[in-house]
Amino acid sequence: MQSTGWKVRFMKQTLLHLIAFLLFLQLAACASVGDPLPSWKDGPARAAIVSFVEAADRPGSPGYIPEAHRIAVFDNDGTLWAEQPAYFQLFFVIDRIKAMAPQHPEWKDKEPFRSILLGDLKTALSGGEHAILELVAATHSGMTTDEFEGEVRNWIATARHPTSGRPFTQMVYQPMVELLAFMRANGFKTYIVSGGGIEFMRPWTEATYGVPPEHVIGSSLKTTFEIRDGEPVLVKQPEVGSIDDKQGKPVNINLHIGRRPVAAFGNSDGDLPMLQWTAGGSGPNLCVLIHHTDAAREWAYDRTSHVGKLDRALDEAGKRGWTIVSMKDDWSTVFPSGATVR
Amino acid sequence: MQSTGWKVRFMKQTLLHLIAFLLFLQLAACASVGDPLPSWKDGPARAAIVSFVEAADRPGSPGYIPEAHRIAVFDNDGTLWAEQPAYFQLFFVIDRIKAMAPQHPEWKDKEPFRSILLGDLKTALSGGEHAILELVAATHSGMTTDEFEGEVRNWIATARHPTSGRPFTQMVYQPMVELLAFMRANGFKTYIVSGGGIEFMRPWTEATYGVPPEHVIGSSLKTTFEIRDGEPVLVKQPEVGSIDDKQGKPVNINLHIGRRPVAAFGNSDGDLPMLQWTAGGSGPNLCVLIHHTDAAREWAYDRTSHVGKLDRALDEAGKRGWTIVSMKDDWSTVFPSGATVR
Repeated sequence: MQSTGWKVRFMKQTLLHLIAFLLFLQLAACASVGDPLPSWKDGPARAAIVSFVEAADRPGSPGYIPEAHRIAVFDNDGTLWAEQPAYFQLFFVIDRIKAMAPQHPEWKDKEPFRSILLGDLKTALSGGEHAILELVAATHSGMTTDEFEGEVRNWIATARHPTSGRPFTQMVYQPMVELLAFMRANGFKTYIVSGGGIEFMRPWTEATYGVPPEHVIGSSLKTTFEIRDGEPVLVKQPEVGSIDDKQGKPVNINLHIGRRPVAAFGNSDGDLPMLQWTAGGSGPNLCVLIHHTDAAREWAYDRTSHVGKLDRALDEAGKRGWTIVSMKDDWSTVFPSGATVR
Repeated sequence: MQSTGWKVRFMKQTLLHLIAFLLFLQLAACASVGDPLPSWKDGPARAAIVSFVEAADRPGSPGYIPEAHRIAVFDNDGTLWAEQPAYFQLFFVIDRIKAMAPQHPEWKDKEPFRSILLGDLKTALSGGEHAILELVAATHSGMTTDEFEGEVRNWIATARHPTSGRPFTQMVYQPMVELLAFMRANGFKTYIVSGGGIEFMRPWTEATYGVPPEHVIGSSLKTTFEIRDGEPVLVKQPEVGSIDDKQGKPVNINLHIGRRPVAAFGNSDGDLPMLQWTAGGSGPNLCVLIHHTDAAREWAYDRTSHVGKLDRALDEAGKRGWTIVSMKDDWSTVFPSGATVR
């Protein structure tokens, strides 16, 4: 009987340990489910963002913002997804030029197309703005908006980033994807305001970021309405409608949204006017710069970079006490599934 | 005792009648609360609209539309509010010219300002498009967007319609205000797409129609971003950005929304491309023309009108089986509180 009593006590104790362990697991799971920003490390950046967002949604708090005014704007290249070794839309342009080359035999002898086809990006882009506009016109105009959308959908589903080999939609910043969802859960409308093409982004931003087409603002070419074979179409023209960069960002925010944002996120001098416009509002606001400081997991660059140059905006952020997010120090994960880029 | 028994019976009967009457009142009230479109008469127009909207929100129905695609676009002048004896924004222009005249002594001798100040609208507008642009530039540019918003807010709160004497925001069509709310209650996003000025509409559309600024699309002047005395401002320029009429409507719908609408409401040939663009979608759609047929309660006009000309679109609606709403036959009430306009 003594031996049996020992066995019973042992089993009871084991059972208690098991229950305690299961409770611990559940608590841990709850804590993880309960953290809307698991890829953000504790620190001043996370604290400033969380405190702003939660106060905005807490009636009676000094930081409370009526829901209609909870407009948050996000740059895309370098803020929501990577932008190295070059803006991703440039890889789309290159792939389209290569795909269209058989129908354009004249490109073999004509810059900047010749150099693109030879894989010599540097020479191709040495023509400056004029060369870029020629490449954009050739690949982004002359078709209907529906046809262009199809081309983007096809490319985004198949193309791979040159150094990581991953789909471009996997080159997004996991902490920012979490932040977008966290802000929406607290009654914010999240808008993308990017120098990239508005119709280049819209086909994939909803699936990737939860940002629907009507919340995407970007650079655009003019379009014309026509009836072709009895069908109404919009045709993309080789003429710039709007460059959504620098001063163009607040201009387009006003045109598309018609309210001043209360939160703005950027990573370069091209975002400075958008941040200034947001900071100039009368109520609580949050201005954030993503600082590319992580040479191991992403890329490290700022004041002298050709892509995403961050110089004047960094000075301004320091002077005005804007929130600066260091990718190295503030993010526990950079890309989804913790992938690296090289 | 007999006399008392009669009295009791009489009182009981009266009480029963009273209870029955109160029940009837309550039922009537319930029926009225239950009808989201009390200002719409039964008929083919109401039936077509209700059937489209309810099917869109009923999963499994052949008319079902995923919520993200439930985009409905509404013209403003002549569709949501009246447009006689002239587009209401013109009265704003006239009032601003008069208010600004003391600072512009040169206007006394300069057309079209001279005629506006003399109350001679016909001569003022005889200069055609050039004269209109001069008037718009003088009254809609040279100030910041915040300053302009203040001017519009002040005007809309104080100005009166020339024939009805009512505030312009009381010159909206009650059945359309009900329809906007009914569609939103069924998961539609309701957008205004108007030839009127985008910044002229935004200050009052939310309170009047429940349509927030970010769902208002209209004609616009260019703006520039500046830092004035350390404050960021957007300054309205005397240069047209976009004319949101005719072919400009589908062009701007694509620019601002980036999805094709599934429902469109207009009242004039200026709305035809927007209706065609909507009708050209692949799924269920609803195209509606508001026909001004009510000379007693509003105004009756269509094919030969200078304001809101409805000619080609009326033919097209007939051919394509679009829904035509007769203000006389389909609306039990036109303006809020049943007011008349003359």
